[in-house]
Amino acid sequence: MALLRSYVSGGWHTAEDGDAVGVPLHDASTGEEVARVSSEGIDFAAALEYGRRTGGPALRELTFHQRAALLKALASHLREHREELYALSARTGATKGDSMVDIDGGIGVLFAYSSKGKRELPNDTVYVDGNVEPLSKGGTFVAQHIAVPLRGVAVQINAFNFPVWGPLEKFAPAFLAGVPSLIKPASQTSYLTARLVEIIIESGILPEGTLQFVAGSVGDLLDHVTAQDLVSFTGSASTAQKLRAHPAIVRNSVRFNAEADSLNCSILGPDAQPGTTEFDLFVKQLTTEMTVKAGQKCTAIRRAFVPADLLDAVAEAASARLAKTTVGNPTAEGVRMGALASLEQREEVRRSLKALLDVGTVVFGDPEQVEVVGADAERGAFLSPVLLKADPERSEPHEIEAFGPVSTLLPYTSTEQVIELAARGGGSLVGSIVSADQGFVREVVLGVAPYHGRLLVLDAEDAKESTGHGSPMPQLVHGGPGRAGGGEEMGGVRGVLHHMQRTAVQGSPAVLSTVTGRWVTGAPRTEGDVHPFRKSLAELKIGDSVVAGPREVLQSDVDHFAEFTGDTFYAHTDPEAAAANPLFGGIVAHGYLVVSFAAGLFVSPEPGPVLANYGLENLRFLTPVKVGDSLTVTLTAKQITPRIDQEYGEVRWDADVTNADGDSVAKYDVLTLVAKEQS
Amino acid sequence: MALLRSYVSGGWHTAEDGDAVGVPLHDASTGEEVARVSSEGIDFAAALEYGRRTGGPALRELTFHQRAALLKALASHLREHREELYALSARTGATKGDSMVDIDGGIGVLFAYSSKGKRELPNDTVYVDGNVEPLSKGGTFVAQHIAVPLRGVAVQINAFNFPVWGPLEKFAPAFLAGVPSLIKPASQTSYLTARLVEIIIESGILPEGTLQFVAGSVGDLLDHVTAQDLVSFTGSASTAQKLRAHPAIVRNSVRFNAEADSLNCSILGPDAQPGTTEFDLFVKQLTTEMTVKAGQKCTAIRRAFVPADLLDAVAEAASARLAKTTVGNPTAEGVRMGALASLEQREEVRRSLKALLDVGTVVFGDPEQVEVVGADAERGAFLSPVLLKADPERSEPHEIEAFGPVSTLLPYTSTEQVIELAARGGGSLVGSIVSADQGFVREVVLGVAPYHGRLLVLDAEDAKESTGHGSPMPQLVHGGPGRAGGGEEMGGVRGVLHHMQRTAVQGSPAVLSTVTGRWVTGAPRTEGDVHPFRKSLAELKIGDSVVAGPREVLQSDVDHFAEFTGDTFYAHTDPEAAAANPLFGGIVAHGYLVVSFAAGLFVSPEPGPVLANYGLENLRFLTPVKVGDSLTVTLTAKQITPRIDQEYGEVRWDADVTNADGDSVAKYDVLTLVAKEQS
Repeated sequence: MALLRSYVSGGWHTAEDGDAVGVPLHDASTGEEVARVSSEGIDFAAALEYGRRTGGPALRELTFHQRAALLKALASHLREHREELYALSARTGATKGDSMVDIDGGIGVLFAYSSKGKRELPNDTVYVDGNVEPLSKGGTFVAQHIAVPLRGVAVQINAFNFPVWGPLEKFAPAFLAGVPSLIKPASQTSYLTARLVEIIIESGILPEGTLQFVAGSVGDLLDHVTAQDLVSFTGSASTAQKLRAHPAIVRNSVRFNAEADSLNCSILGPDAQPGTTEFDLFVKQLTTEMTVKAGQKCTAIRRAFVPADLLDAVAEAASARLAKTTVGNPTAEGVRMGALASLEQREEVRRSLKALLDVGTVVFGDPEQVEVVGADAERGAFLSPVLLKADPERSEPHEIEAFGPVSTLLPYTSTEQVIELAARGGGSLVGSIVSADQGFVREVVLGVAPYHGRLLVLDAEDAKESTGHGSPMPQLVHGGPGRAGGGEEMGGVRGVLHHMQRTAVQGSPAVLSTVTGRWVTGAPRTEGDVHPFRKSLAELKIGDSVVAGPREVLQSDVDHFAEFTGDTFYAHTDPEAAAANPLFGGIVAHGYLVVSFAAGLFVSPEPGPVLANYGLENLRFLTPVKVGDSLTVTLTAKQITPRIDQEYGEVRWDADVTNADGDSVAKYDVLTLVAKEQS
Repeated sequence: MALLRSYVSGGWHTAEDGDAVGVPLHDASTGEEVARVSSEGIDFAAALEYGRRTGGPALRELTFHQRAALLKALASHLREHREELYALSARTGATKGDSMVDIDGGIGVLFAYSSKGKRELPNDTVYVDGNVEPLSKGGTFVAQHIAVPLRGVAVQINAFNFPVWGPLEKFAPAFLAGVPSLIKPASQTSYLTARLVEIIIESGILPEGTLQFVAGSVGDLLDHVTAQDLVSFTGSASTAQKLRAHPAIVRNSVRFNAEADSLNCSILGPDAQPGTTEFDLFVKQLTTEMTVKAGQKCTAIRRAFVPADLLDAVAEAASARLAKTTVGNPTAEGVRMGALASLEQREEVRRSLKALLDVGTVVFGDPEQVEVVGADAERGAFLSPVLLKADPERSEPHEIEAFGPVSTLLPYTSTEQVIELAARGGGSLVGSIVSADQGFVREVVLGVAPYHGRLLVLDAEDAKESTGHGSPMPQLVHGGPGRAGGGEEMGGVRGVLHHMQRTAVQGSPAVLSTVTGRWVTGAPRTEGDVHPFRKSLAELKIGDSVVAGPREVLQSDVDHFAEFTGDTFYAHTDPEAAAANPLFGGIVAHGYLVVSFAAGLFVSPEPGPVLANYGLENLRFLTPVKVGDSLTVTLTAKQITPRIDQEYGEVRWDADVTNADGDSVAKYDVLTLVAKEQS
């Protein structure tokens, strides 16, 4: 069988004496050799430097929207190659359903990040973080946090259980941030990742140097990481500890993110008696999480907390479901659960099971025996689902993880106790609460949140649409404190920012405008001969302004507006009552009247590049407008965002409505769509 | 002299045999013993557990606003005790100006966090992070990130140079987050921190257990930290490395934040020729940063990059300024620069200077000699300001830090080169660019941002109000990548969130509303007999709604609104032109008309608890409103925030305006002030 190729420093690399030294990788069900793997001969320092010198600059030339578009193109391309990947995936022991979680799930992350990038990030290379911070009374000295991509490589060390999703969920946010990736999957299932990478590289969609791939051992890679590189790891807690203390990582304060499998829990509410929807949901979810990917998921339920008086009922219902789980070769008809990734993995699980059985008893399954369909039970890494029950006050169920189709039922007797027991996992990726009692749910969620990166509340209302306990979502953070590695991945834009340096920039408003490309209050305005609404995106510049007014607000305007709109709130209509209002002390004009008059002042009515006002943001009424006040509005182009896939883009305008004293009466952002070119 | 007291586990602790074993601390200028310090006998495991069991729960019972109010009370109290602290501060070698940076600066951080807490955090115990994330088509399954305080203790290990500001800038965000602190200052100047803590504890302002204090060595403290504790450290890069790799920190994935002194740079722009304001600003800032706190600041300028042809001019101007710096006992008349913190510290600086002199030459000062006012030059830790110049291509100036009044001039010849040179510091807390050339500024800021936590751009416009290169601001992040420790402190609410666990909560809208206390789209609404505007904060509940309408939009309404407001944009007035608009395809009603009519529908006009509409947020016009459309508005109480210091609070309402087809035409949040009680 072929030796897997790495892709580093701009080319494919095959270990020279790999046939001799390469590690053989076996089909999980049949034991046949699938491929061999060796990273012998790779110059890791050179590969990192290649990423920094080639991929980084290429990515940083692109805007977030351009990177997002490439992610979408890549996702679409991979979708065309799913069948090929499914076939290889089956050799890892994965059923078709398991493969879809891995492969379609991974492609889904690319689509999700593409969409997030387009909707939530600017069409720019600099991310503006938070609001402008005033630092001085006179307003000449202000600050703005920005985020720019780190200038290194994101080294991504992945686990064996998700050979497609694992690399893609780390790659997508790094790429969107502008940071090249070096992907290093666990060897066991790396033939699937290797093929994935071949498809990606052969597509030519990604700029060269933005994705490198190492098949085989990590060698001296980590010795060469610098403060501008990142290392993210998914795998066992013990390996995470070793990497975290790696001398180069410690010496250079390298950003290190770990996501380790944890003792995740699921909690059944006391309300969920047998016969309730929630009881059934709990049991179904528990058995599903045990058997999907043969339980080889960092997010699987290891600890199932049930009210003590429901323990037997849950045990019985779960056993009945597990009994229907056909185990075998994932390509065989009717198989619901495939093999573990390898015989070594099965041994590891059996060892952990043994330790758990010191304090627990088997509810379902036999750790040593399983009936197998379509394969040789000896040569394949098959294992029966095993459900245990144990005393929750013992430490073992909270500490020992059997990384396979194994879960333990643990009884509890009070809300307080179950919160305390959940925390004993020492930090988890995910927990779920299955209950229709919202008081119980609130107490448990807030009680266990400090120990979890994600919490799922399952009930009759959301069950049909729920994505389930075990599925990390690209929109949501994935990671957890303590035992779960203390890291955080994905979470939409949050995961992008993890790859960037946040920097507070202090200076004058003019300087901040120049640096961020966004007009900042206090920066120069340009009032030209041409109304800014008459300018296309190609012509408009930030700071372009129009000052319009004054317009006096008459008593008749306020009276009329109240009558016309029906907004007869007493502060606009009843002088006596308005005088008693602690904030106004007399009749005030409607806020809606003020912004309507302002629009009447700043608008340029004839057809032109401005297509629509699609919204307003951050509107604040700052000073009451009284009858006789004169309004002037200053409108200034603040942010210009051409869309890469449309003939128009967004322009955000700063609107400042002032009275005759020059006090701002209303401030807000006006959001418009503007054509790229004059038609 | 007295043995310093620690404050742990609810009481004052004095080392029993401290007089024998305690480490003597000396006045920096006179060498007299000020105090002795020993942490002998402290049970660190018990102290941590005390914080977790006592301070944590006490803090978590308070809302962010209540914690903010306590910070303000504490700040005001400390302000009353400044004189006493100044006097002790002088013994650390600090001039009055230095003391103000430390003491008033620290008090300022408390005020700033109090203000941030009140304005940017909810009056609640749960922080809601980001938007609701839709996870399903039907809307029954959504998610929301929340943040809750970690259940441990924030262990804060501080440096000797800011005995007041250092502890307070770490304490304030932890306290606001709801996490108790254990403060461990560097021994050298800990007598000042000890007195600060005495004043704080004696005030009784803080809940018991929320602030503990260790004078002396850290003992086995770190062996006892768990995943719910945090460790933040300010000090040398080498100690930061040691702590980062501490077994308990690594084993438990403890959040570790380091802020290490770094080789910060200041860059003079090529435009800033002698005679320009920027030239003078650069020189003045450089010499100020060298002499404030005798250069013992993590943020001081160590590398001063100047255009090669300006090197001599800068050297001359800086030397002239430094020559005027009177060194001596900070209490003596006319002294501009005090002593280093200790004789050991001076030896350390001299050692570093020696290494720097291997590759550089002295421009000003004598490392071995200095004229001293009001003190004995031998017994006090005095050192002359020393300005060097060196070849920027040598590595030493970018790597060796002399933590005293020492800086090195480094010539550069191109923008590209100076960016590359700045990066060679390997990561810095802060850099400054002094230039009036905005093109140069933008290129340098974006080029060096990946290596910096903060960047200051200084020019004629902001100089008067600038807070300066060396001053971290509570609103801005403080920290930097790589050599600077890879950490991030403060930054307003960002620093608060570093003490909290972010958790994605998935569930039905109803569940998320219950968990977060904020109404989420899709959660149940309550339409009662009483209009929600008639309810006080005490009566109103999230989900309380009013549905009003329909109101038909007539052609005459649109015509009239255009004429009345002056908003005659063609899409509202010119059927032919409007038909050609790619988004509307015909006349549409003004967005402002829609929201005005909506207000007319949902308002309850008579005087009552609703005092004012003070703003709108996130307004989006989603479907064009055509003549003949009927508008219905649903207004729902979304978030209720009573103010702790007013008779009213904020209510945020969800407004959803729909047409006859049930499509949303506009969605937004209406912000109102509502009285706590019926009057």
